Amino acid sequence: MQMAVSKHMNDLLEKGGDWYQPGLSLDCVIFGFHENQLKVLLLKMLSVEPWALPGGFIRKDEHIDDAATRVLRERTGLQDIFLKQFAIFGDPARSDRKYHQARFRKEGFSVDKNNWLLQRFVTVGYYALVEFSHVIPNPDNSSIACEWHDLHSIRELYMDHKVILDKALETLQHELNHQPIGYNLLPQKFTMPELQKLYETILDKKLDRRNFQRRMTSYGILRKLNETRKGGAHKAPYLYSFDVRKYQKALKEGLQGGW
Amino acid sequence: MQMAVSKHMNDLLEKGGDWYQPGLSLDCVIFGFHENQLKVLLLKMLSVEPWALPGGFIRKDEHIDDAATRVLRERTGLQDIFLKQFAIFGDPARSDRKYHQARFRKEGFSVDKNNWLLQRFVTVGYYALVEFSHVIPNPDNSSIACEWHDLHSIRELYMDHKVILDKALETLQHELNHQPIGYNLLPQKFTMPELQKLYETILDKKLDRRNFQRRMTSYGILRKLNETRKGGAHKAPYLYSFDVRKYQKALKEGLQGGW
Repeated sequence: MQMAVSKHMNDLLEKGGDWYQPGLSLDCVIFGFHENQLKVLLLKMLSVEPWALPGGFIRKDEHIDDAATRVLRERTGLQDIFLKQFAIFGDPARSDRKYHQARFRKEGFSVDKNNWLLQRFVTVGYYALVEFSHVIPNPDNSSIACEWHDLHSIRELYMDHKVILDKALETLQHELNHQPIGYNLLPQKFTMPELQKLYETILDKKLDRRNFQRRMTSYGILRKLNETRKGGAHKAPYLYSFDVRKYQKALKEGLQGGW
Repeated sequence: MQMAVSKHMNDLLEKGGDWYQPGLSLDCVIFGFHENQLKVLLLKMLSVEPWALPGGFIRKDEHIDDAATRVLRERTGLQDIFLKQFAIFGDPARSDRKYHQARFRKEGFSVDKNNWLLQRFVTVGYYALVEFSHVIPNPDNSSIACEWHDLHSIRELYMDHKVILDKALETLQHELNHQPIGYNLLPQKFTMPELQKLYETILDKKLDRRNFQRRMTSYGILRKLNETRKGGAHKAPYLYSFDVRKYQKALKEGLQGGW
């Protein structure tokens, strides 16, 4: 594994400047929901202590959205996933030549300061909502591990990746006020308490059960099924699914409807 | 004027590669509202027939948002303006080397195909909502004119700028369903028909007067003033202003309020 990673890094340093759009990268915040926790898919690189968001470069003839789809497919095995640009991170201070030079030195590479990888990089942030159970985490050729981490336990990440993660979460929280969510995060049938838990973990706060149910029901995007979830000490809760047509309409026009 | 533009272009071709982040630009869609029309600020370049969005490059040590603010200030004289990244345009087909080579040849420059300006450019789209009456349109050093154009009369623009404009408008239309608008586009006091006209010109469709008034009033972001707009054949309409605190809250949490 380490040899393959080293070989890849060597190629990237030597030839990446010919292959990729200069000074531009992308990073993906991949959210999944599992056991009432919001998870984020992270990578561990060879010589870097903090974990990192999965990301990559844009081939010289590649559409940037296609590059993001490729990264997501390579890391998760998933295709046809809701993937959304949410911000571009263009602070010159995010690229720290000395830090990266030291990192490459530690991995056994001597890198000239004019190397393309040591220049300033602007990165485009994408986020994806994926069904946890469908994902097979897969380290890329510059990583030694790829794992889900609990969102609220992540304290530090590589470079400015924590800033990127926080901005993605802020975007989700903001969208929760006017857009439906859950279609890609929940199983096809779910209970109202499960849906509420999803909202609570994104918002990182408790919601009132009755208010939540009233407001969610008022949007008309849920279908109450003639089934209950059996097992557990409490009265078996009803199962719901999304009314896909109304869900899509609400995604387009907002939960209040269009003008 | 033409000599200054030529001198600037010469410098840009020769030295721009040292000054600016490679392969990255930004373009601003600057909306203003005037006489019940939504206007867009456009530039005319020396040898290019279609008008263009104001845009620019990012200095090697400059934050990309600061570059956008600089472009807006240079073109409009305005500072402290609501300026928002709305998308990144990363299709490789948007950069057409042959087209640009022909353009530079027409302007009297012979440009090597390896010149930085002939490489692939990814561009970041920003939009701004500005008060029309405060703007003094100002051509930049690569343009010969800077003027407001009626949004709905714009058929063709330079490169993919029409795509960028359409995407900005689509973003505005989408946001209209859950965010307040008008604070930067309308004078401090306005009538309900004026506010409705703003919505109608953004949405490019007629709205029902009574439904509009009812829905707008329900958001609680308007203050009805004890004044009317005099003049005109009809009954003098009441003036309104925005309740700035509630307007800001609705910008943050959406018009329906947060969870």
